Amino acid sequence: MGRWGPDARGRLMRAAMELYSERGYEQTTVAEIARRAGLTERTFFRHFADKREVLFSGSANLQEAMVSAVANAPESAAPIDAVAAGIEAAGGFLQDRDYSRRRQAIIAANTVLQERELIKMASLASAIARALRKRGVSDPAASLTAEAGTAVFRIAFERWIDEGNEKDLRVLIRESFEELRSLVA
Amino acid sequence: MGRWGPDARGRLMRAAMELYSERGYEQTTVAEIARRAGLTERTFFRHFADKREVLFSGSANLQEAMVSAVANAPESAAPIDAVAAGIEAAGGFLQDRDYSRRRQAIIAANTVLQERELIKMASLASAIARALRKRGVSDPAASLTAEAGTAVFRIAFERWIDEGNEKDLRVLIRESFEELRSLVA
Repeated sequence: MGRWGPDARGRLMRAAMELYSERGYEQTTVAEIARRAGLTERTFFRHFADKREVLFSGSANLQEAMVSAVANAPESAAPIDAVAAGIEAAGGFLQDRDYSRRRQAIIAANTVLQERELIKMASLASAIARALRKRGVSDPAASLTAEAGTAVFRIAFERWIDEGNEKDLRVLIRESFEELRSLVA
Repeated sequence: MGRWGPDARGRLMRAAMELYSERGYEQTTVAEIARRAGLTERTFFRHFADKREVLFSGSANLQEAMVSAVANAPESAAPIDAVAAGIEAAGGFLQDRDYSRRRQAIIAANTVLQERELIKMASLASAIARALRKRGVSDPAASLTAEAGTAVFRIAFERWIDEGNEKDLRVLIRESFEELRSLVA
């Protein structure tokens, strides 16, 4: 396949994930990723700003999907149900459990990546709170519901990538919301 | 007062907070903090590892107070009540609203400090989840309750340092727990 092959981005992602797993994130260079993918560094930078973005390029889309699901929940939906709709939208977005498992293992091995992941989650909670405010939910309810929903997402996601767990992410999200309900009752 | 005055630590903290507010965290050096406090750099480093630790040195004690309140909650307490006891312990620990307000403004102005604060909150949630597991609470309940409690703490804290809010932090924590209960019900 030529360097302008339609799946250059996918090949770069696969090559990067292989190298991060094999020799560690820190020890991998963009040049090595491009070589493994059979592409040039220039092509890499056409798709990703740096080697970290290979792991985080999906985050903006994920956040956008969640926020628009919150915005588009029925007008009559309670704040927690609008947030549940947003979190469940993530369940439709994240489908490749094996990829998510490998990504998580790479992040868990690197402090800087863990920090980036925390920032991503904080930004997600803020975006969901903003979407709730646009629906007319006032504070502290908006922030509190957004934080609780993000916590449910994080826990359901951890359960999903746990070895041995074969349940669908959306099922785990619904279960975790139920669990939160019974825990705080 | 001599350089070995009993309140060297307090003077260094006050000097640092003044300088961070006046000219920004990045622009302040340890030498300037020591000079403003009328002490030497050597004395500074006897009390703090670096200029960042002036802002975060209380975090370990806060976390310890919260974790031991969770551990010492009555055996019969439900997980959410044990966590509520932990979070309310923070309300006893944080008393100086004006200091907390100024600290928050300094952190809000600096990305690296915001990241450090996110890491602190994540570490707090993990520590509370561990304390719950020691009480025999299994996962995902332990993680979920710890995350929800940490969210309540964050929201109550934000309300507490909000200008115009004169309520006690412990009152705001109890109100936020109630709010969470009614939001997820």
